[in-house]
Amino acid sequence: MSLADDMHDLGRKAREASRVLLQTPTAQKDRALLAAAAAIRARADSILAANRRDMEEASAADLSEALLDRLLLNPARVEAMAKGVETVARLPDPVGHRLDAWDVAANGLHIEKLAVPLGVIAVIYESRPNVTADAGALCLKSGNAAILRGGSESFHSSQAILHALHEGLRDAGLPEDAIQLVPTTDREAVGLLLGMTEFVDVVVPRGGVSLNERVRQESRVPTLLHLAGNCHTYIHAAADATTAVAVTHNAKLRRTGVCGATESILIDRAVLKTIGAAVVKDLLDNGCELRGDAEVQKLDARIKQAHEEDWSTEYLASIVSVKMVGGIDEALAHIARYGSHHTDAIITEDKDAAQRFTAAVDSAIVLVNASTQFADGGEFGFGAEIGIATGRLHARGPVGLKQLVTYKYVLTTARDGGAIRAG
Amino acid sequence: MSLADDMHDLGRKAREASRVLLQTPTAQKDRALLAAAAAIRARADSILAANRRDMEEASAADLSEALLDRLLLNPARVEAMAKGVETVARLPDPVGHRLDAWDVAANGLHIEKLAVPLGVIAVIYESRPNVTADAGALCLKSGNAAILRGGSESFHSSQAILHALHEGLRDAGLPEDAIQLVPTTDREAVGLLLGMTEFVDVVVPRGGVSLNERVRQESRVPTLLHLAGNCHTYIHAAADATTAVAVTHNAKLRRTGVCGATESILIDRAVLKTIGAAVVKDLLDNGCELRGDAEVQKLDARIKQAHEEDWSTEYLASIVSVKMVGGIDEALAHIARYGSHHTDAIITEDKDAAQRFTAAVDSAIVLVNASTQFADGGEFGFGAEIGIATGRLHARGPVGLKQLVTYKYVLTTARDGGAIRAG
Repeated sequence: MSLADDMHDLGRKAREASRVLLQTPTAQKDRALLAAAAAIRARADSILAANRRDMEEASAADLSEALLDRLLLNPARVEAMAKGVETVARLPDPVGHRLDAWDVAANGLHIEKLAVPLGVIAVIYESRPNVTADAGALCLKSGNAAILRGGSESFHSSQAILHALHEGLRDAGLPEDAIQLVPTTDREAVGLLLGMTEFVDVVVPRGGVSLNERVRQESRVPTLLHLAGNCHTYIHAAADATTAVAVTHNAKLRRTGVCGATESILIDRAVLKTIGAAVVKDLLDNGCELRGDAEVQKLDARIKQAHEEDWSTEYLASIVSVKMVGGIDEALAHIARYGSHHTDAIITEDKDAAQRFTAAVDSAIVLVNASTQFADGGEFGFGAEIGIATGRLHARGPVGLKQLVTYKYVLTTARDGGAIRAG
Repeated sequence: MSLADDMHDLGRKAREASRVLLQTPTAQKDRALLAAAAAIRARADSILAANRRDMEEASAADLSEALLDRLLLNPARVEAMAKGVETVARLPDPVGHRLDAWDVAANGLHIEKLAVPLGVIAVIYESRPNVTADAGALCLKSGNAAILRGGSESFHSSQAILHALHEGLRDAGLPEDAIQLVPTTDREAVGLLLGMTEFVDVVVPRGGVSLNERVRQESRVPTLLHLAGNCHTYIHAAADATTAVAVTHNAKLRRTGVCGATESILIDRAVLKTIGAAVVKDLLDNGCELRGDAEVQKLDARIKQAHEEDWSTEYLASIVSVKMVGGIDEALAHIARYGSHHTDAIITEDKDAAQRFTAAVDSAIVLVNASTQFADGGEFGFGAEIGIATGRLHARGPVGLKQLVTYKYVLTTARDGGAIRAG
């Protein structure tokens, strides 16, 4: 069989499994998840052996230390993976809820809007093998069949994890095709997945900018993309100094590689030499590289000069651009021009300014006196997330179980004799 | 300037207008709509003159009678257009509602989920000039900037209608760029629109299968597509005869060209010779062409033979395929195989069968004892709709004002001292 035939077969089987999952009761899905978690623990040795094989091939291929670390599994990480699957089992089922209901007086219809699974979700990710378990569990809990395409480096690890997930599915009497792994590292398989509109309902890429851009350019299947996180923290004239320093420190330095990390700090002219100076000193003293405009540079000799491209750069590193703004209007205009509609924060004690900022900034997440690093499904209380969406359709911000469902309308007659004929 | 430059300019202006609309109060939007409706009436003569020009060119180009009728405006249709815009003004504003709100105990965050506009919506439609007013009004009311691309046949009519809409926007102090029309009939402009991810947030095609397929193939911008409406009516063993005949008649014949029209009737073996015969006779006597399987053909000599392709054909005409099924399982399997996930109905007095059908059929709309032609925003009580979506992300079924918004999260601290740092 050709690769295209293989992928078609995979898609067809996913669609068939999705028809079963559509109606699978919560208890059965949870049983599969708990059995899968147990199987991950029981199969830890073979998962670790498969991972050693991946690690050896990756070392031979001279991959970076960072990538090797993402690829590495150890007993603690395997246990965390099993715990993650158990966490998903304990989360509420997003399927079946009545989202809305109303009667239409004019025709006597009774309409219910019910949450139903999306169908088949393809998740394309890079080297972390734990995504195989995470994404598989989230799709299963939300009643969706999953087609997983992991990074080629983690191929053997992912296969071993998949065996555990299948054990869980079998234990609960569910089809193994509910969670499938693309059985090849051929890059062409991704292209085929992105065109399988008949079998795939949504594509979720979990990886860097280049993967997301490829998916945006090529996919015929609707996507939940994560494009950029150029997040801002604006220190308003009425900011509290202690809050400003604490929030900015966390927003920039807690973890520099996450999409919710602040990449640009805007400081109001009125507080530049007071609060601004304190914020800047704290970051510099903690080893952060600052790139400022001329006014900001005057605060400290360690501040480098910012260039135009800095305002739109997502560093994902211990670097931040810093700009003085004349007031909230200039801050809003700057964010509108350079921001990525992901996450932006204002530090202020002025309720009107906070209200103006949260209304005007057109981002998935806007915060008042809190760190942009709260842009995370865990912090939102979602329990688990498959990623963060930067698009505007369907899901915006963290994508948890509730975002992995769609809805259907069920129409019945609200009263005898009404509503059987459209008028 | 090149066409690409023109389109870029159009997109940039739409994005700028969308930033204004994001925060425009309901009263101001409604004022613009009411003024636009008045302007449509006041400018009726020039709209009709522009339409005569379109009609002359269309007649010279030998367009079909059906197309000419879709293109034609007359005083009654202009009045209906003005009334339609007034209807949208009276509908509730979908923007600003608090869709959800919760506190996260673990970190002290207070999270609000608020309805906000999508941004810039491009609507691509065919010959009906009234879509210019309808789509422009719906986008404006939902706080979105609109880029409208009408059919080349209706170019002058649409321009004249646009002048009226602009008069309304000016009257309310809103930017004219809130509603723009692609100022050329060049087909390449559509291709450019579909690639303008920087400026266009959603593409809504309103037209036939070929337009929707082109958009699906080419668009880099997320879309709300309408692909197919192969709708089924299943007459269950426990159907009521009168209901079955009345509903099927309406579902097939009320209007045959709408996407919610029934294209396949499934008749349970148990009632084939009783209710099935009555349903078939009613349709045949009313001039409908029936294509049946061997068992169905035995009911009446006028029934033609159905071929495999009939089960997946959307006739949009006074033709229907009819199949006998052994029971609900076979009906469900047939719909899963041939259906288009649009709208399907069961006729039954058996509550369990109804429940099984509505749970198992994976369509946007499922009905019990009611006509598939209820698949319509008007019948849902939406007041107005921009179309019906057959995709699964964001909007499924009728797309009214509530489906033309997305959401943002606003995060504040729920209690003193909490929640400024992500943990």
